[in-house]
Amino acid sequence: MDIIEVFSKNVKKYRNEMGLSQEAFAEKSGLHRTYISALECKKRSIALDNVQKIADTLEIEPYLLFKE
Amino acid sequence: MDIIEVFSKNVKKYRNEMGLSQEAFAEKSGLHRTYISALECKKRSIALDNVQKIADTLEIEPYLLFKE
Repeated sequence: MDIIEVFSKNVKKYRNEMGLSQEAFAEKSGLHRTYISALECKKRSIALDNVQKIADTLEIEPYLLFKE
Repeated sequence: MDIIEVFSKNVKKYRNEMGLSQEAFAEKSGLHRTYISALECKKRSIALDNVQKIADTLEIEPYLLFKE
């Protein structure tokens, strides 16, 4: 799997573990709902500062989002 | 440390372990030398597709670039 696939899959997994919808997650992270949706569909590359926002929202260490 | 600090430090560490100058690393990765220099100086955010190129060049799993 490439990095974007692994990352997308992990965001979705941790988001579901927190019981957050894409919309609730978007609101909590300060990112737009369509951006969350696009990244979970592997439709766009993400910049590292947004990876930080996502990890903070999920309350996990960023590297976990890149582990297969 | 934030994600960009951790990432920058790790790129530099693994690049030095391979004995590559910034210039040689840039050539091997297909990224521009000024881009490598800027990322090691934490001057810019990096998109995930370039993180993939960097990890491939360093012959490591991408998540290692995010571990403190």
